[in-house]
Amino acid sequence: MKTVADYIRTIPDFPEPGVMFRDITTILQDAEGLHLAVDGLREALRGVDYDLVVGPESRGFIFGVPLAYAEYKPFIPIRKQGKLPAETISETYELEYGHATIEIHKDAIKPGQRVVIVDDLIATGGTTEAMVRLIEKLGGEVVKMLFVIELKGLHGREKLKGYPVFSLVSYEGK
Amino acid sequence: MKTVADYIRTIPDFPEPGVMFRDITTILQDAEGLHLAVDGLREALRGVDYDLVVGPESRGFIFGVPLAYAEYKPFIPIRKQGKLPAETISETYELEYGHATIEIHKDAIKPGQRVVIVDDLIATGGTTEAMVRLIEKLGGEVVKMLFVIELKGLHGREKLKGYPVFSLVSYEGK
Repeated sequence: MKTVADYIRTIPDFPEPGVMFRDITTILQDAEGLHLAVDGLREALRGVDYDLVVGPESRGFIFGVPLAYAEYKPFIPIRKQGKLPAETISETYELEYGHATIEIHKDAIKPGQRVVIVDDLIATGGTTEAMVRLIEKLGGEVVKMLFVIELKGLHGREKLKGYPVFSLVSYEGK
Repeated sequence: MKTVADYIRTIPDFPEPGVMFRDITTILQDAEGLHLAVDGLREALRGVDYDLVVGPESRGFIFGVPLAYAEYKPFIPIRKQGKLPAETISETYELEYGHATIEIHKDAIKPGQRVVIVDDLIATGGTTEAMVRLIEKLGGEVVKMLFVIELKGLHGREKLKGYPVFSLVSYEGK
């Protein structure tokens, strides 16, 4: 029987030499792969009491929205600066080269709501940490973090200590 | 009973004065809204024989992936230049100011496959037209185009003459 890992394509030297890029498009390219991924994340939510699914542009949308749809929960998008049309709050975080700013609608989360974060990949955890700051600023409580892929060598889990992190497939390297 | 239209928020003067921005995040922000949208698109596919769902970054992912998931079909992403890691083909199209280039993985569609395009919005139809060129270059056949919102005043439907266009909610203006 196949697992999600069987649907991930590894592309060496993308986007730069030395990086082993884990391509998730080959998961989606097969209806079975898409179901294994989304249903694997759903399984990890069994018994978790939560109100909302939150995911970042644009690969967080790929797994977060079908999860929210299948679980009959709302989906709240986090987007790059300038994309969300109503009133937002923002957070800036460091990248390997430079910075990135992400935003969430101010009225998207109400104080006390229990939030599940979904993204395709956890690497250094920088994006996820910025998402947590946005959610907590609005009074939300992060009760679970779900990733399809975890790159263990980048230690994202340590940065997110105290939050329950789940990944479907993990790789030792970067 | 509510319809998808009831979940759309209109924001005047975004991203620039004079534009009435149709905000789809308020659809997703309610589990019922998300279901009305995705299930409305599914309904429009009844009796349509197709192999794949294709959607563009990033709002096309929001409606395309849950649709593919629910219908047990593969989802093929179209992304902005430089984002897809394997071999791609690309198309450039005109924007109001400047150009945009989108790409698809070369191995994502096989000749003769029947394709459904999904996006959140049809405006001038420029992005959709470029997507059709990508799909047809790979030998795919576009059998249906699904949109949550149609801005009739921008005449996208005329640009896509000969293709079956469906939208859930349409507005007379721009």
